[in-house]
Formats: sequence, C-alpha cells, structure tokens
Amino acid sequence: MQKQNFELLILGSSSAAPTSQRNPSAQLLNVAERFFLIDCGEATQIQLRKYKTKFQKIDHILISHLHGDHFLGLPGLLSSMHLLGRKQELNIYCPPELKEIIDKINSVSDTRINYPIKWHFTKNKGLNLIFEDDKVEVHSFPMKHRIFCTGFLFKEKPLPRKIDKFKLEKYKVSVADIHNLRKGEDIINEAGKKIKNKDLTIDPSEPRSFAYCSDTIYDVDLVKFIKGVDLLYHESTFLNDKEKRAQETFHSTAEQAAKIAKLAKVKQLLLGHYSARYPDIDDFLKEASPFFNNLLLATEGKKIVI
Amino acid sequence: MQKQNFELLILGSSSAAPTSQRNPSAQLLNVAERFFLIDCGEATQIQLRKYKTKFQKIDHILISHLHGDHFLGLPGLLSSMHLLGRKQELNIYCPPELKEIIDKINSVSDTRINYPIKWHFTKNKGLNLIFEDDKVEVHSFPMKHRIFCTGFLFKEKPLPRKIDKFKLEKYKVSVADIHNLRKGEDIINEAGKKIKNKDLTIDPSEPRSFAYCSDTIYDVDLVKFIKGVDLLYHESTFLNDKEKRAQETFHSTAEQAAKIAKLAKVKQLLLGHYSARYPDIDDFLKEASPFFNNLLLATEGKKIVI
Repeated sequence: MQKQNFELLILGSSSAAPTSQRNPSAQLLNVAERFFLIDCGEATQIQLRKYKTKFQKIDHILISHLHGDHFLGLPGLLSSMHLLGRKQELNIYCPPELKEIIDKINSVSDTRINYPIKWHFTKNKGLNLIFEDDKVEVHSFPMKHRIFCTGFLFKEKPLPRKIDKFKLEKYKVSVADIHNLRKGEDIINEAGKKIKNKDLTIDPSEPRSFAYCSDTIYDVDLVKFIKGVDLLYHESTFLNDKEKRAQETFHSTAEQAAKIAKLAKVKQLLLGHYSARYPDIDDFLKEASPFFNNLLLATEGKKIVI
Repeated sequence: MQKQNFELLILGSSSAAPTSQRNPSAQLLNVAERFFLIDCGEATQIQLRKYKTKFQKIDHILISHLHGDHFLGLPGLLSSMHLLGRKQELNIYCPPELKEIIDKINSVSDTRINYPIKWHFTKNKGLNLIFEDDKVEVHSFPMKHRIFCTGFLFKEKPLPRKIDKFKLEKYKVSVADIHNLRKGEDIINEAGKKIKNKDLTIDPSEPRSFAYCSDTIYDVDLVKFIKGVDLLYHESTFLNDKEKRAQETFHSTAEQAAKIAKLAKVKQLLLGHYSARYPDIDDFLKEASPFFNNLLLATEGKKIVI
C-alpha cells in the first residue's frame, strides 16, 4: 500500500509587508487528500492558482490571528470559490471577529455565497481538538502575540498495520481477512487455525505530525504542544540584530525559533514570516544552524514532504 | 519645456475572479507627478512593487464601488504604507461604507495607521469635482451597476502658453517676463515698448483627459460625462456570447464599450475587466473593432502615454 500524502506547500513566506519576491502568510497542507489552508494573507488565491492547486478541494481554512497579513486574502478566496460554483461546505477555524468582518464585507458588497460556511471559533486556552476524521486530527493551541493568536497541530491517525505478503500464502490467509489484519486483529486461516496478528504483520510507520506557529514571541510554553513533531513551522520574523524589536512586537528571531525546536525535540524546523528588511533569507539559516541542525527555509512554491 | 506626464499603468485587468495571468482591477495614473490609484483589488500592493512604482508617492486613492475585486487590496496597502514609514496625508475617495470596513479591520487587528487619512465620500448624482490643484482636476460621476458605483474623470488644467524662443531676443524681452508670457499676458520690453502676447507665444497643447468607467451596464447616460476624452477606460467583462448575462449582472460587452466610445467621440478606448472565462483577450479586440477603431487592451504592466 502506498504511503498516504502528508505534504506542505508554501504560498507565502513574508511578514506584514510583502516584497516583490515574498507573499504574506499562507500554507496548504495535504493530509491523505484532506486539504487544509493555514492562514490566508492577501493574494493567497492568486498563489493557489500559480501553483496549480485545486482550491475547491480545500474544505478547511484555519486562521491563526487577525493581523491583516494572515487573513486579508480570505474574502476574495471565499468569493472566487462561490463564483466558480462551489456547493460543498467550507469549515473556517478562526477568532470570532473574523466572521464579523466577512459578514460586513459581504453585506456592503451585496455578495451572496452559495455554499455553506461552518464557523469554528478558536479558544485561548489549552490544546483543543478542532477537527477529526479517520485519517487526521487537528488541534489549536494558544500563542503569545500582540493579539489573540493560536497555533495548529496536525497529526495523522495511527496507520493500518503492514501485511507481510510472503506470509499470507504460507499461513493460507483468505483475502477477506486482510482488512482485519490491518486493524490489528488475529484471524482464523483457511485451515481453521488461529494465527496471531504479529506473525503476519509488521508495525506501520509512526503517525506523522506538523505544527504551525505563527506569530509568537519566544515562548517556552509552546514546547508542550509541539513536542516531537516531524515538522515544526516556527516564525522567524527577525534576526538577532533586531532581538529587542522582536520582543517589543511579540515576534521571534531565527535563533529563538531554533531554540524552541531543540527544546521540543522536533525532527525538522521550517523558518518563515521574514521581515521585508532582510533581502537575503540565507541569513536566517546561518543564524539558526548552530542551535538546530535540520532546517528548512520557507519560500514561495516550496513543497515539503513530511 | 518638456510636456508634463499623463500616463496610465495597468495593475489589474481581471473581473471578479482573478486568473493566473490577470489580477483584479487597479490602475495607477500619473498626471504631472500627481499619482492617483484607481481601484485597488486584492494584491494591488504586490503589483505596485512588481512594476517598481514608488507607492508612497500615491496621495490619492479612488474606489469606484465596493465589490471585492475593486477594493480588497486597500487594507493591506494602507498597512504597508504605515509600516514603511509614511507620514504624509492620504486622500481616499469612495462610497462611505468603505471607511466602516477599514475601521473594523483596523480595530480587530489592533492596527494603528501613523499618517492622516482624509476620506471623501462619493455621490450618486451628477459630475462632482473631488480634487483640484494647479495641474489637474478630478470629477466623479454616477454609473449604473448592481451597487452604488462611480466613474472618474481626470482633466489637465490648461497648459501654459508656449514661448517662441527666437522672438524673445528679437523683441528684447527680459527673462523676468517669461512667466507672464506663459500666463498669456502682454509685456513691456527692455526698450519700453508694449509687445502683444500673441506675437511672442504660440498656443499650448490642448489639456488632456482620461475617464475611468468600471463597472457598468451599457448606459448611454454616461456619454455626457466622458465626451471627447483622450482615453476612455470602459469595462468589457463579457463578449456578445454573454450579452444577456452582461445585462443581468450590470456589466458590458466589448461591442457595447466600443459603441459608448463612438457615441462619446473619445480619441482612444481601453478595454478591460475581462471575465475569467475568456482565455484569449484578443477576442475582445476583434469584437469591438468594427464599432470603434482606436482600441487598446488592458494587460498587467502595460503603460499608456495619454
């Protein structure tokens, strides 16, 4: 059986003011063909087209907080989804005031949206399960920023056990029992003999996980929510030359992001949300490398297989 | 003296849903180094950067109406102007509800704008002077669309008279009198003799004009406002295959735009606001050509010297 998808596409890597190269925050996560759009800065719909994604497949949009560079692309995307004939429900996970803004814009522009939107308002305490199905679960957790802000944690559900094909014939297992084997059950074979699951299967890969942390001050309280994830996206708006400014504006430096990654023992760290003042983002890699050694830089169009 | 600038830069040529090639409505007009941003669809600030304009020089933003594809780029642009240190006043000409939307977004995101914004609310009757200085005057006028919508008319002020340099010496005119000659006055020369203005100067070029009409149903009532302009931008959302749809949605076809241009006896017609359903915009040119023969197609990045 082919491994299910767990892929992240970067749509925007810039902080507040976009540059000619970098767009405001947005990422598209595919977990087993469930598509999650995480933040939706201005021009996200244009990025989604540029990278040839099928944006009608997005059934979940998660907005971390209500600074413009994280949500101003939403009204236009909702309208385009409507204009292009969407009928199926869309789920939006966000702070409550976002609904007020969208309602206001749609009312003033006399815009009707011909598909149902289900709003899920995020909370400012603890880890909260906000979505779950047979393949994936999604949680929100609070972050320390200038305004109410949450991170998001995506975890695969435990994968089915892997069947050792060579043993199926040896133990005379019927095809009908393969499903039960994957679930971890023992079975009775064609000869009427009980066969233990562990004699026929091997452990599946560990469920994979991704945590999204944008925007936040350096905050060790985050560590408990993101412990051991396969990929951590942690904002790094500034370099150390602006550490004071990072603190004042409730943002992080590349070094601070790396230290959080190390404390949380994550497998890989993805940096992004770069201030427009830095023309060369390799400097973020240089600053973070001494503190954490499995690093990636978010750049528009980059695809990361988790 | 060099002719003063009168130049239009197209930032977006698409109607409601942008495509991978076309952005929502926005145009930047330079009249004698006064910069007017006309409509501000999503990602306008990114387009302004892409085409290397100095967006802090924009002191006037005009919004025709409150469909998202004409204003959703404004909140982000206002924020970026602030982040990049703007101090000088910005004038916004728009329907009143736009201020409510901007106020709501800025309040929810705790965004402070550190420069003054002066709001000028457009009216739904007649030709209204909304801006004037020594070089240019700008008027708004009502258009027939689904919601309240105005067009804009830009006219150069009469240009100074042109001085015939060869005659200055012949008639012994002092340098100090050149200014008075430009204004059209007669002068007394160095020999104490009165010299008529018309003996020293020639007529300046005619003041130029540009009219912006987006979005509108086919509407001959427009003609009186845009009569004889040097350049008319008139929306052409559809081709004739969708004439019925154009009427239902209060938009125009390319043929209808050309007919308005002919009735108004304008010098040149610029088409734009193309529906995403048309991959090849040359079809707009083909449809309009039999009805008007000095035609341009709006495309992103196109600069038109008026």
